Amino acid sequence: MSWIARLFGRTTPAAPAPTLPGRRESGETPRADFADFTPDLGAFLGHSAYVQLEVFEGLARAVLAAPTVADKEALSRAAARALTKQQQLVELIVRAKYQPAAVMEPFAPAIDAFKATTTGNDWWELLVSSYVTAGILDDFFIGLAAGLPAPYAAEVAEILSVPGANDVLRDIVAGGIEREPQLAHRLALWARRLVGDTLLVARSALAGEKDFDHVEPVFTELIAGHSRRLDALGLTA
Amino acid sequence: MSWIARLFGRTTPAAPAPTLPGRRESGETPRADFADFTPDLGAFLGHSAYVQLEVFEGLARAVLAAPTVADKEALSRAAARALTKQQQLVELIVRAKYQPAAVMEPFAPAIDAFKATTTGNDWWELLVSSYVTAGILDDFFIGLAAGLPAPYAAEVAEILSVPGANDVLRDIVAGGIEREPQLAHRLALWARRLVGDTLLVARSALAGEKDFDHVEPVFTELIAGHSRRLDALGLTA
Repeated sequence: MSWIARLFGRTTPAAPAPTLPGRRESGETPRADFADFTPDLGAFLGHSAYVQLEVFEGLARAVLAAPTVADKEALSRAAARALTKQQQLVELIVRAKYQPAAVMEPFAPAIDAFKATTTGNDWWELLVSSYVTAGILDDFFIGLAAGLPAPYAAEVAEILSVPGANDVLRDIVAGGIEREPQLAHRLALWARRLVGDTLLVARSALAGEKDFDHVEPVFTELIAGHSRRLDALGLTA
Repeated sequence: MSWIARLFGRTTPAAPAPTLPGRRESGETPRADFADFTPDLGAFLGHSAYVQLEVFEGLARAVLAAPTVADKEALSRAAARALTKQQQLVELIVRAKYQPAAVMEPFAPAIDAFKATTTGNDWWELLVSSYVTAGILDDFFIGLAAGLPAPYAAEVAEILSVPGANDVLRDIVAGGIEREPQLAHRLALWARRLVGDTLLVARSALAGEKDFDHVEPVFTELIAGHSRRLDALGLTA
């Protein structure tokens, strides 16, 4: 059983995936659009805005703990970009006539718990957490945004597609691994541990049917993006 | 002896203030322009950018420690504004062909020590610190910017004059004092303690002659602004 299947609690062998009329023909590879699982606008915006707030908080901790002024400066640039995304999502919340704290609140306990388990034991693990979790969750919410009503679908995708902190984090972490090669093994293990927790956050954002075979392609796609990002650090996913 | 005088280490009675030709006529009140003390462009930008980074870090801590999602949301908005100021100063540093970390670095030890002594013992003191220190230091660096070469003088003043976190901090702290009136006394004492440390940071940014009588009006002006901001909290400076 794959660990993605375990994530979804499937303990029996896969039954043939149900055919969704109009979505796929018998014999084709199971295929799912993120948009099939998009929750309503308020929940989507509240969840994604609170996730971005958590991404910002991780980067803020990284700024606070940065060992040099140069790292502090680079990370504050990264934090500013993450915070811009969060603020733009909050602007959409306000424009859609929701109250920001009210739509974010339902997601706070789970995301706060996620943050607590993914902060890491030192600055390097914290940086890798920001890199891995923000990378996956940005991809995830961009995909999920496709199911939002216009104009929100396009606007959210545009906000989240702006490169966030990843280039700054990649440069600092890759530089650290180059100087201290023994970091690589530890950080690769840590990154692997983060993926499961991060996909659980993504899973919790899915609305409606969460049949494993239907959802799996979504997660396979997220993991492919994650592997590319880890490659860029010189680590194996 | 006033505490401002003590801050400047003056232990003897004031001699008549020296007359600066063209600046003031005998018999007039001593008058100083901040611009008389403006350091060179690199030092000014490095110092003010590192101070803004410290302001941002204080707000980031406040976001991390915020007890409710609504407070977190409001403070992240405030942190975004502080971070924008910092990023815009860094852009000026780059445009002026300085290396950001290099010009900020000389000021890091003193500002880091300042931050350590002004973080406070709880969330309320942290909020008051951000409010008091950023208020005074924004005013100070706006005044000092007048002595920079064009176009930097106007650009820096414009960047720093944008209202930062103060309205958010005022609302949260004033709301807290309203709900828990016993906070007022403790926070007023704390604010008073912060002023001396903050003025020492300002003093360290002054270039050239630091004759007490010449500098005092600058500080008197800063304290007037501080008193107005404390009034807005319902506290006495």
